[in-house]
Amino acid sequence: MKAIAVERGGDGPAVVDVERPTPGPEEALVRTLRVGVDGTDGEVIAGHHGGFPPDSDRLILGHEAVGVVEQAGDTHFSPGDVVAPTVRRPPGESNEYFERGEPDMAPSGAYYERGIEGADGYMAEYFTSPGEYLVSVPPSLAGLGFLVEPLSIADKALELAYASRSSFEWDPESAVVLGNGSLGLLTLAYLRERHEYDRLYCLGRRDRPDPTIDIIEELGATYIDSRETPVAEIPAAYESMDLVFEATGSAKHALDTVAALAPNGVGALLGVPEPWEFEVDGGSLHRDLVLHNKALVGSVNSNVRHFEAAADALGAFPEWLFDELVTGVYDVSQFEAAFDDDDTTIKTAVQFSAYEER
Amino acid sequence: MKAIAVERGGDGPAVVDVERPTPGPEEALVRTLRVGVDGTDGEVIAGHHGGFPPDSDRLILGHEAVGVVEQAGDTHFSPGDVVAPTVRRPPGESNEYFERGEPDMAPSGAYYERGIEGADGYMAEYFTSPGEYLVSVPPSLAGLGFLVEPLSIADKALELAYASRSSFEWDPESAVVLGNGSLGLLTLAYLRERHEYDRLYCLGRRDRPDPTIDIIEELGATYIDSRETPVAEIPAAYESMDLVFEATGSAKHALDTVAALAPNGVGALLGVPEPWEFEVDGGSLHRDLVLHNKALVGSVNSNVRHFEAAADALGAFPEWLFDELVTGVYDVSQFEAAFDDDDTTIKTAVQFSAYEER
Repeated sequence: MKAIAVERGGDGPAVVDVERPTPGPEEALVRTLRVGVDGTDGEVIAGHHGGFPPDSDRLILGHEAVGVVEQAGDTHFSPGDVVAPTVRRPPGESNEYFERGEPDMAPSGAYYERGIEGADGYMAEYFTSPGEYLVSVPPSLAGLGFLVEPLSIADKALELAYASRSSFEWDPESAVVLGNGSLGLLTLAYLRERHEYDRLYCLGRRDRPDPTIDIIEELGATYIDSRETPVAEIPAAYESMDLVFEATGSAKHALDTVAALAPNGVGALLGVPEPWEFEVDGGSLHRDLVLHNKALVGSVNSNVRHFEAAADALGAFPEWLFDELVTGVYDVSQFEAAFDDDDTTIKTAVQFSAYEER
Repeated sequence: MKAIAVERGGDGPAVVDVERPTPGPEEALVRTLRVGVDGTDGEVIAGHHGGFPPDSDRLILGHEAVGVVEQAGDTHFSPGDVVAPTVRRPPGESNEYFERGEPDMAPSGAYYERGIEGADGYMAEYFTSPGEYLVSVPPSLAGLGFLVEPLSIADKALELAYASRSSFEWDPESAVVLGNGSLGLLTLAYLRERHEYDRLYCLGRRDRPDPTIDIIEELGATYIDSRETPVAEIPAAYESMDLVFEATGSAKHALDTVAALAPNGVGALLGVPEPWEFEVDGGSLHRDLVLHNKALVGSVNSNVRHFEAAADALGAFPEWLFDELVTGVYDVSQFEAAFDDDDTTIKTAVQFSAYEER
């Protein structure tokens, strides 16, 4: 079968021919429909993040997948079910994090990540997975189920953020998403759908006309241009924020988040920057965190519970959002277009097969 | 009656004669037993923190008090009850934070703090308070009830820290308290008492022999000398910490806390530093927070619930700890000794009257 993979010392992703995987007894064989592309794929391709499977010089890419169960094996699925697979897998032996359904909280070394670190991903015509790592997706979302994984990342981060405010009464009214990439926009739509925020904002660095600014405004949010309003100045220019959701990878934005927060506010951090030394007013940052009961929570990955919440939420998103957000779905033969990134690209996917309702 | 107060433009705290306060119908009149001294008092005296009551050029100091109810009024207390008063009061009009019992979460401007900001404190022979802001203290702790307030500060911070880890299974084993001042040592004893930690550490910058190092070791904790082991190097020299409790006021320690944490760990920040610019590797700090699901929570003040938990916990502390921790209790006439701070001073209090069981 065809797969999209990187090889050690290679020139970037290429279509390769690999053997179709054989499911174990407790695994399903899944026919891949579509696999989304995100920034992590770019980092894996560039060699900045992740790594090859043990004893292999090749990694099949892709961690945002939706597929159709072809053989259910001993799983609780049936052939024809539409599913999205989670990303983390035990590194050989299982461990307590997987056993309690929280692989997203496993420390480095206690997991592989399919398509990223130590295990092949989903950019192939078929993949296998234990049933416990597959989440049902409504058939109506078969074409969009590759958005379940990124939205689950937002759900997990919001869960941590809300938990951090759970020891007191917290009634957030304002939120800003830092970053107008696909994760930022999906999160903005999710926050809008949850109806908890009176006022939503999204920060980017784009000139109008711009398709992401259009989406921000169609979601009823306010676009903040970071070139005019740095993160720390958001309270002066707009208002202080009960929630800041950082999806930029900018460490300055992450540290300036504290200044952007309202008293008792929380910043959820999701970006994964490289080392970067710079000057900060650490005293004021520290003082502000303490005197105003503020919090910063870092968040990575997600588990089945977050996938389920994401699949559920996705069904409530308006159709126009998908039309504008998904700017390209490419056949395997044209996969390189899915990895291109310019100002008209928001979210892309590679299509391995078409969904046909049974 | 005698009180210890600072005056605008004055030379520091002095004993003044003030009128004994008259309780309102829903207030108790409390005869003050002892009032503890802490770093905040020093900042108030220096004019770095807090402020005078409206229309007054004088502020009675003291926010860590224990007293005996003299007149109960319409409160649910009885004369003779030993009580500790909370610190925050509504600034004139009440507001939602006070109404729901969470004045500790009120933003700046929505509270006064007795003895600190906008309202007279407890360093006087008598004070009045609505019953809702008084917490029962066991008579056996009448001489030590001035420790309820500082311990409640630790309890509130730990509540926020634990809440931030409540969305997943978190079973902390190691904790370090940054700071061997009285708050740090009280917190260390509290963590020991809660029996949740297999390994406790406390960071200071003192040479042996030192009474705080003695307390740390008698509590079964390991002393870390910050001059030999900076906070960020604690994992290499000892181990990474599930919990870091920062009670130093050092912004560098606060930011280095992220590096000291184990995956899924949380840093509770309590210090209140001045502005201080310095260089940080913000990229690595941000990346570490995200990839390891770490959190930082700032915490200030405490409410009745935390006072109750603290009064309860204090009763379980060993007698030797109080003997070593409370290095001086001074009569009003010698109050200046209570404000002195040297390497032999840990915790001091001013005594206004003696407790006699009825």
